[in-house]
Amino acid sequence: MTQRPLILISNDDGITAPGIRALVEAVKHLGEVVVVAPDSPQSAMGHAVTISKPLRLEKTKIYGDIHSYQCSGTPADCVKIAVDKVLHRKPDLLLSGINHGSNSSINILYSGTMSAAMEGAIEGIPAAGFSLCDFAYEADFTLAAKIAASVAKNILSSGLPPGVLLNVNIPKVSEDIFMGVKVCRQAHAKWEEDFDERNDPNGKKYYWLTGKFVNYDKGNDTDEWALANGYCSIVPVQYDLTAHNAIGFINQWNITHEN
Amino acid sequence: MTQRPLILISNDDGITAPGIRALVEAVKHLGEVVVVAPDSPQSAMGHAVTISKPLRLEKTKIYGDIHSYQCSGTPADCVKIAVDKVLHRKPDLLLSGINHGSNSSINILYSGTMSAAMEGAIEGIPAAGFSLCDFAYEADFTLAAKIAASVAKNILSSGLPPGVLLNVNIPKVSEDIFMGVKVCRQAHAKWEEDFDERNDPNGKKYYWLTGKFVNYDKGNDTDEWALANGYCSIVPVQYDLTAHNAIGFINQWNITHEN
Repeated sequence: MTQRPLILISNDDGITAPGIRALVEAVKHLGEVVVVAPDSPQSAMGHAVTISKPLRLEKTKIYGDIHSYQCSGTPADCVKIAVDKVLHRKPDLLLSGINHGSNSSINILYSGTMSAAMEGAIEGIPAAGFSLCDFAYEADFTLAAKIAASVAKNILSSGLPPGVLLNVNIPKVSEDIFMGVKVCRQAHAKWEEDFDERNDPNGKKYYWLTGKFVNYDKGNDTDEWALANGYCSIVPVQYDLTAHNAIGFINQWNITHEN
Repeated sequence: MTQRPLILISNDDGITAPGIRALVEAVKHLGEVVVVAPDSPQSAMGHAVTISKPLRLEKTKIYGDIHSYQCSGTPADCVKIAVDKVLHRKPDLLLSGINHGSNSSINILYSGTMSAAMEGAIEGIPAAGFSLCDFAYEADFTLAAKIAASVAKNILSSGLPPGVLLNVNIPKVSEDIFMGVKVCRQAHAKWEEDFDERNDPNGKKYYWLTGKFVNYDKGNDTDEWALANGYCSIVPVQYDLTAHNAIGFINQWNITHEN
């Protein structure tokens, strides 16, 4: 490679979050880093894109010599506008995170961090999202940053299969008891919702979304198992959602518009 | 079954959209229908959920005898709050749509319609999303409604494999040239972004997300092929995003936190 690799970095906690700074610092020696990230927190935005209002995009100086831009949109918007308006060539790598909090299992669907990575993969850019299982603003990203750098190095040298991106979650453990990395499948787990019902000062009801995360999966090959046992989980993820095994089943149906 | 099936209906165009009314009318003879849908349009919201502000939920009368509620949240929020706060038992079926506009191929990721269906599937409710390839408010939902009723009937009698939901797209064709239904895989297609750059009255730039949908997939077993050839496409979809085939590839890497 004659040029240094071009590495696009985004996240969903916003451009000023400590997690994205840790990621930038961890990989800046691997290539030319450009940051395009939301100007405000965008957690739980899923794969939302902004079509009903325009976007703002502003150059910032918060990463010194590293080019960085804040965008008023969602994480997926950030990747789209970076590819179309900011970068002069297709990036060699897209990294998203490091998220403050886990995005394991079903949380990948709700995660803005992973939607940025997925948007990269859709654009044909090798991509990975990183999440540390610690929601605290002052979380310790040391271990997560080292793993992110190692994953980034591996992707740059080996590439990723077409249509595949990585969901990397790092447990909240100290390095001396860290068990290493496990390549996993997505656990069968979900949130048990419990809306917190309250009354506003006018006596009208409103609801806060709360819930409990429940893992129904007894397998020891899942991301939840890995994280619960002190491992970093890496789930290779695809954006082709076709349930190929179910095609034969549906084909047996008689679906008609003639009653 | 001693009870009539309980059918939850949602969408992303909002509770007053003609498409959801057509769906309600099409399936109300199949069971007890309850509508919980956004109080305003939520297109392109992906699988966003609302965690940073509270939700409102209001009973409406717009469907007469059919119980209906409007919610201030996203389509995924609507399903969550319906299951936790509105319904007295788990629904037998969740239907989302009928969307004004296609949700074929990669659009499933951006689609609020499909995120409602996916949230249902995550909750263990057999679910399907319906989209008519016509963005017009006054689109003709006659054919789409007949297909939705037939799909609903088939799901109620046969069920769906665990973790599988359906993405049903109906072409904008008249019934006399409609080719029938095809069970398909998701086409490999994407949006080529083209942000429209403008200046506001203060001379500051802003951007509208626009783009062109490009189908890279030459297969005749895809949803795009079906729709382009006058068929209704049904893609069985899963929310387990694991790229199982890639696990071996990543396992060959040496990922380490020790530099």
